[in-house]
Amino acid sequence: VESTVLGPGDDAAVVASSDGRVVVTTDLLIEGRHFRRDWSTANDVGHKAAARSFADVIAMGATPTALVVGFGAPGGLEVEWVDGLVAGLREECGTVGAAVVGGDIAEADGVTIAVTALGDLGGREPVTLADARPGDVVAVTGRLGWAAAGYAVLARGFRSPVQVVSAHRRPEVPYAQGPEAADLGATALTDVSDGLVADLGHIAETSGVRIDLEAARIDVPPKLREVGAALNVDPLVWVLTGGDDYALAATFPADVRLPEAWTVIGRVSEGEGVRVDGRRWPEGGHEHFRP
Amino acid sequence: VESTVLGPGDDAAVVASSDGRVVVTTDLLIEGRHFRRDWSTANDVGHKAAARSFADVIAMGATPTALVVGFGAPGGLEVEWVDGLVAGLREECGTVGAAVVGGDIAEADGVTIAVTALGDLGGREPVTLADARPGDVVAVTGRLGWAAAGYAVLARGFRSPVQVVSAHRRPEVPYAQGPEAADLGATALTDVSDGLVADLGHIAETSGVRIDLEAARIDVPPKLREVGAALNVDPLVWVLTGGDDYALAATFPADVRLPEAWTVIGRVSEGEGVRVDGRRWPEGGHEHFRP
Repeated sequence: VESTVLGPGDDAAVVASSDGRVVVTTDLLIEGRHFRRDWSTANDVGHKAAARSFADVIAMGATPTALVVGFGAPGGLEVEWVDGLVAGLREECGTVGAAVVGGDIAEADGVTIAVTALGDLGGREPVTLADARPGDVVAVTGRLGWAAAGYAVLARGFRSPVQVVSAHRRPEVPYAQGPEAADLGATALTDVSDGLVADLGHIAETSGVRIDLEAARIDVPPKLREVGAALNVDPLVWVLTGGDDYALAATFPADVRLPEAWTVIGRVSEGEGVRVDGRRWPEGGHEHFRP
Repeated sequence: VESTVLGPGDDAAVVASSDGRVVVTTDLLIEGRHFRRDWSTANDVGHKAAARSFADVIAMGATPTALVVGFGAPGGLEVEWVDGLVAGLREECGTVGAAVVGGDIAEADGVTIAVTALGDLGGREPVTLADARPGDVVAVTGRLGWAAAGYAVLARGFRSPVQVVSAHRRPEVPYAQGPEAADLGATALTDVSDGLVADLGHIAETSGVRIDLEAARIDVPPKLREVGAALNVDPLVWVLTGGDDYALAATFPADVRLPEAWTVIGRVSEGEGVRVDGRRWPEGGHEHFRP
């Protein structure tokens, strides 16, 4: 990969950064908390581990360039699992033009994956959580609720429908839309890792604004309605609270012309907090929320 | 800190890199394997965790600029321990002009610390393991054997002499000497993390050369002789095999004029492997080695 100046094998790696700045983010994934080896293959875990950190990179408006990975595992872990993990990490890197440039291995009681991703802003100003302004529109891109529906299916002991289970195992991050949002003049940008309402809450709090969402503008795909009906769950809850899809949520000036990938779902005004159809999102009451 | 463009609190951090390249290295520290909470304070562990990664950064000829830290811990871990760890990380950052710019926290069975350090080459070419040449001299800077002596003392249930125990708990890395080595024209450079002979072995193998050390040129300080006598260990073994001091070892063209901090201890020639007074370092026989 072009951005790798010096790859693995030396005391440290060297990565190019086109504009004299580098974006950096780190995540820790612990077996049993962030993934289960009976729910996901090693390859899935590799893809998801890389995707999760790359989502943070694109949420600044940057392009991912490199990963370094710390890997802790019990002595008895099968070599095939490690090979699958590394393959998954590399494949996800391949989809964004990044590379695994370094790592460290240690014996640990449980499988532990520490991923640090680097990114290049390409001359763009980083898009933070802090600059949403009253009058802005709120827009999203990427899948929302799919991974949460998949988790709900897996947690109940099922393995299908495959579309939602796959979404839990391996997110499809809208990689191109991070830098695109920056180029479109996004005033605030985040990846949806904690859930749409929670992550917009970070923007509302950091920018000192209120965010109003209109439920009617938020797409609830037929597949999620179908799974919701089967499990007796309102699928809008998955869309509003599910995080593992790593969609993007942004605020833009009201006169922005958004490409098709983006959907406007609300507005920014003066005040604080996030409301859905004018109602405060109930604290700690996600499972019981019915708009 | 000047190199921090955007610190913690957003989706990712942004760090300056003066010349369009960034050095990156990652390490995983696991309780019971890399540190013991009954041997070291949280503050010590923080210092050592940062120092270990910064040593890899300076071993490329770069200056450390930033740390990101993934921290896994059991639910019951005392808040004071975490505070001490963070203080130690920050203090070690302070000694090199770097900053903690991001992190992630997760529940884990044991205390797990994933440290990724970034560094700035300041226009220098990275000094790798690959370019040692026959005719070069081999030189070291920093402490050698002190941490190993401290470990030997602690492993036998003692808590003194304080000088060696402290060296195990908190390394004193010769930070200024990494970029200095690059400026002096070092052909290869590494930090001593696996042990002097082992790490010079990496240079010998990667550069395709032989390295000969003269035991008479290698300083064995009186304190290490004293501890060695008390424990019935040849202190030269600690100096040649101990890693946790994070000294630096480098090769330079023979006509180099080295500042006082550096000590020439050997030469590079054609061939392979590392020899001490002409003898191959015995594989797996460190404890029994007597030169």
